[in-house]
Amino acid sequence: MIDASRYPRLSRIDRPADLRTFEPTELRAIADELRTYLIESVGKSGGHFGAGLGVVELTTVLHYLYDTPDDRIVWDVGHQSYPHKILTGRRDAIHTVKQKDGVAPFPKREESEYDTFGVGHSSTSISAALGMAIANARAGNDRKVVAVIGDGAMTAGMVYEALNHAGGMDEEPNLLVILNDNRMSISEAVGGLTKMLGRMTGSKTLNALREGGKKLLGDKRSSGTARFVRRWEEHWKGMFVPSTLFEEMGFHYTGPIDGHDVDALAGVLTMLKGLKGPQLLHVITTKGKGYELAEGDQIGYHAVSPFDPEKGLVAKTGAKKPTYTDVFGDWICDMAAADEGLLAITPAMREGSGLVRFSKEYPQRYFDVAIAEQHAVTLAAGMACEGAKPVVAIYSTFLQRAYDQLVHDVAIQKLDVLFAIDRGGVVGPDGATHAGNLDLSFLRCVPNMVVMAPADERECRQMLSTGYRHEGPAAVRYPRGSGPGVALDASLDTLPIGKAELRRHGARIALLAFGALLPAAEQVGAGLGLSVVNMRFVKPLDRALILELADTHEGFVTLEDNVVAGGAGSGVAELLAAEGIVMPILHLGLPDEFQHHASREDLLAEAGLDVAGIRAAVLKRWPQLAMPEQARAAGY
Amino acid sequence: MIDASRYPRLSRIDRPADLRTFEPTELRAIADELRTYLIESVGKSGGHFGAGLGVVELTTVLHYLYDTPDDRIVWDVGHQSYPHKILTGRRDAIHTVKQKDGVAPFPKREESEYDTFGVGHSSTSISAALGMAIANARAGNDRKVVAVIGDGAMTAGMVYEALNHAGGMDEEPNLLVILNDNRMSISEAVGGLTKMLGRMTGSKTLNALREGGKKLLGDKRSSGTARFVRRWEEHWKGMFVPSTLFEEMGFHYTGPIDGHDVDALAGVLTMLKGLKGPQLLHVITTKGKGYELAEGDQIGYHAVSPFDPEKGLVAKTGAKKPTYTDVFGDWICDMAAADEGLLAITPAMREGSGLVRFSKEYPQRYFDVAIAEQHAVTLAAGMACEGAKPVVAIYSTFLQRAYDQLVHDVAIQKLDVLFAIDRGGVVGPDGATHAGNLDLSFLRCVPNMVVMAPADERECRQMLSTGYRHEGPAAVRYPRGSGPGVALDASLDTLPIGKAELRRHGARIALLAFGALLPAAEQVGAGLGLSVVNMRFVKPLDRALILELADTHEGFVTLEDNVVAGGAGSGVAELLAAEGIVMPILHLGLPDEFQHHASREDLLAEAGLDVAGIRAAVLKRWPQLAMPEQARAAGY
Repeated sequence: MIDASRYPRLSRIDRPADLRTFEPTELRAIADELRTYLIESVGKSGGHFGAGLGVVELTTVLHYLYDTPDDRIVWDVGHQSYPHKILTGRRDAIHTVKQKDGVAPFPKREESEYDTFGVGHSSTSISAALGMAIANARAGNDRKVVAVIGDGAMTAGMVYEALNHAGGMDEEPNLLVILNDNRMSISEAVGGLTKMLGRMTGSKTLNALREGGKKLLGDKRSSGTARFVRRWEEHWKGMFVPSTLFEEMGFHYTGPIDGHDVDALAGVLTMLKGLKGPQLLHVITTKGKGYELAEGDQIGYHAVSPFDPEKGLVAKTGAKKPTYTDVFGDWICDMAAADEGLLAITPAMREGSGLVRFSKEYPQRYFDVAIAEQHAVTLAAGMACEGAKPVVAIYSTFLQRAYDQLVHDVAIQKLDVLFAIDRGGVVGPDGATHAGNLDLSFLRCVPNMVVMAPADERECRQMLSTGYRHEGPAAVRYPRGSGPGVALDASLDTLPIGKAELRRHGARIALLAFGALLPAAEQVGAGLGLSVVNMRFVKPLDRALILELADTHEGFVTLEDNVVAGGAGSGVAELLAAEGIVMPILHLGLPDEFQHHASREDLLAEAGLDVAGIRAAVLKRWPQLAMPEQARAAGY
Repeated sequence: MIDASRYPRLSRIDRPADLRTFEPTELRAIADELRTYLIESVGKSGGHFGAGLGVVELTTVLHYLYDTPDDRIVWDVGHQSYPHKILTGRRDAIHTVKQKDGVAPFPKREESEYDTFGVGHSSTSISAALGMAIANARAGNDRKVVAVIGDGAMTAGMVYEALNHAGGMDEEPNLLVILNDNRMSISEAVGGLTKMLGRMTGSKTLNALREGGKKLLGDKRSSGTARFVRRWEEHWKGMFVPSTLFEEMGFHYTGPIDGHDVDALAGVLTMLKGLKGPQLLHVITTKGKGYELAEGDQIGYHAVSPFDPEKGLVAKTGAKKPTYTDVFGDWICDMAAADEGLLAITPAMREGSGLVRFSKEYPQRYFDVAIAEQHAVTLAAGMACEGAKPVVAIYSTFLQRAYDQLVHDVAIQKLDVLFAIDRGGVVGPDGATHAGNLDLSFLRCVPNMVVMAPADERECRQMLSTGYRHEGPAAVRYPRGSGPGVALDASLDTLPIGKAELRRHGARIALLAFGALLPAAEQVGAGLGLSVVNMRFVKPLDRALILELADTHEGFVTLEDNVVAGGAGSGVAELLAAEGIVMPILHLGLPDEFQHHASREDLLAEAGLDVAGIRAAVLKRWPQLAMPEQARAAGY
């Protein structure tokens, strides 16, 4: 429970209606309490940190001025939604964020009526908010709709699609887009847009004017203020922001203003509430605001593990097992040294994808295209046309954004692009929007693709080399976190395409494991005396080995950390059907549902994909495997 | 063969090197011959018409000035590539366009070294060209790269992703983007961008200046011309185009110029060839230029069936069978009359998706969002949040552009959105880029989705109503063209979710047909005495019926016009495996390859999915079905 002596105001705010009982002069103090509480809570729980600190004032003022939940606030991505969650009924639970059965890490419609749109991937907020505005207009409802979007998210194409639609409508939608400009996405925002935003806000004169303007906005209720602000703001824009991108698209632009100044925010938002048509408010904030360590290391504090706010993040000591991300990061540097044709592309995930070292050692061959998955993949296709060797490093869940480009621009043309797909399968604490549960299904159906899933670190390296050396589209899909801890060397050896590895000669049943589930399969296989295969290739399958095993076994179990529907196991069943082989097969994989947020281990166990679950499923199908050897020999 | 007396110049141009032997003063005449030849050829063959006519001069001048194929021209979408194909070795074959074994309807790398990038979907050209420019720079090659993109394609988000990346690079790429602005995409360009382009080119003064400028550009070889053009153009921009979108993104903007004026084009392009960094040239053209009927009906002449150029398109007379597109178009008007919550969304495919009547009868409930599939789907999600009932009308192949949005914004949140998916399965003459061969696979793996495939027109209507009334995400996926011709009524009846229909009680083998293959399955079933099921639902499957049939039959055959990999048939196999049922199953569906262009009938037959092919496949697996009754009874 919140300590009322330390948080005299916040402790009285169970929901935004409570917030609105305070005088506007207290907003500053409320924001300060909210910031302190956030630092304390996330220090305990871990979670997304810097983004929330940057929007403490904005969140406070929005819930103060807008009649939430009846008015709609749509948070883009949702990294920044913790202050919103604290003000909207989840104050006392926020320390459970990302934990199983705890508060979700992103806005989630099921969790709260204040969470108007579930997010996790960036750049959807304007589209969603426009849909809401249109639907409300059609229903004769005049509720307000506000989208809050970071500058990092502005690079994704769907933002422009939405701005273009909203700004071009004959009947102008009542929609306010707040551009929360902190000059950062998760790592550093890149591209022409960022430069343009820099030009818009870089002028000293402009900043001086802004400072002056803020004072004039002090008393938001003064009847003349709104009119003055509009005149002042139009004048200012006419002088210094001649024609921004947003006005070109048909939006009315206001700003930039200081997003940590509650009075300025309140004044401008009060004015904007009264205007019709598509509005864009440009707010400048500092990611990590108010926590010095986070302001100084915005990338490090984007998302954190639990830490002591007094001490900040402490570097972990001692040897730790490399993650698959680390394996990829080392491999790509080694392969780049061996082959100067290698070019690496990431859609704004340098840190997450393990490309920090590469970006420093090979800056000329490193392309961070910003949050722009569609472009990332077609850019790679264009590079491959000219004989370069592009590697697209991308999270499984974000590859969904570039599916058409993978199919059309790469696979149809059989272009030589390697997809290094991180966070495949169960991801965990970030919830359903970050899960990679579908990739084997949506990749396997694409002609010309080679699809691999490594069972350990060394194999991941071998597969990356294999996909890289293979002339044509290939994907290596590996999980979040670390593997079994197999020793690594600097080899760039490849594996034969489409060859599986028989890991254990056993009897009766063969466990065909794809990727990360191999260690569990091996334990179960050893316990029950079954054969175990490290399948390695989801596509093409090792036809010869499968036929041989079908001849010598009574049944197959396929195992994968992908949904069963259309997954790798279905590929095995399709092969058997095509060969006219009829034999029992059991598909173990992820369920046909979106998993909630919890640890990867918890989610795998829930899906029955840990050792106990796999063993139980096998024995349920073939109870006779549990019998003692002699009983089996006697034919029971 | 081309008639040299009618085409004295074009008949001598077998490839661009031949074109370059002509004097620049002959370019006008060459362009005129090219236009006449194009009208004559497409009149015979049918195909994409208006777009090619609009770029006759641009194509001629590009191949004249640039050293193709060593320099790279990337045509966006490729609707406009017929003149390019005529000038690059395919003059005498262009009348075979879209036909089986004929010239491909879009640029295709396998077909010609002049086709630098395979296309079909819009808005990929800048990404691909940037990839080429970067790869060439890294390889120390200074070849030129030019992307030609229509204004309609500029609405898709990936264009901005590419502009943002190219314009923001520290090392500026050598890339020329030619914006071919004809104020049309396939239907009418919409959105804020179009309005902006209109403002840029609408001024009378600007047009007068442009006219004057053109005269000055007459002799492109004059040494002073290039310098003058640059000064003139900078002056002009300073006066009338203060700061365009493109300059905001970091491109150097030139234009607009008249894209039908070969001398103006040659002058400006000569200048631009000498400049470094990302360049954007804005060219104004008329779709259908030079063929009066096409200029007057740009939508009608976008793509045509064969016609007599003297007479133009003739309206077809007599009753024709309604296409599935027509069925959808009528249904949505009827449902809109019954439910005022219905809102319809199309990403720039009003005509193709059958929404012309709806757009006229319900303009307030009709949303053409331009080519912007990602936005279209998330917009629908936002609408559904507010209790509206959005219907997204989209081609199967274009839905690939919005896969993440379908998964995250609709399916995870279980929002009430209906996807009316046209051109599912085999599409035909437009080739692999327009095929809908993957949709059942990539939809079936998504939790919370209901996926339906109608076997006839009436069922399509029922399924649309079913998906519409179902509270949650649903998709109805129907093929291109017409169905078996079942009579339709105005009913808005629904079907029970997840219930299949046993169409024929037979023996031994059950044919489980999904969607369009039902009529063929019925013929085969009748011939061989087999059971036939109209499966209707790809997800959820009719578990009860499948189990009952498994009990009473020796084997199953699944039939679908989708790839076998992960398709509807695999769903049946997964269900059997989950139930522990072991029985022979034969999956008939599309092959694991991208199909070439040919008629839908040809492609289905090639895949063995016509009556003869299905019958042969069934008999190959179960030869005893071909035996006379008595022999079977005797146990042979």
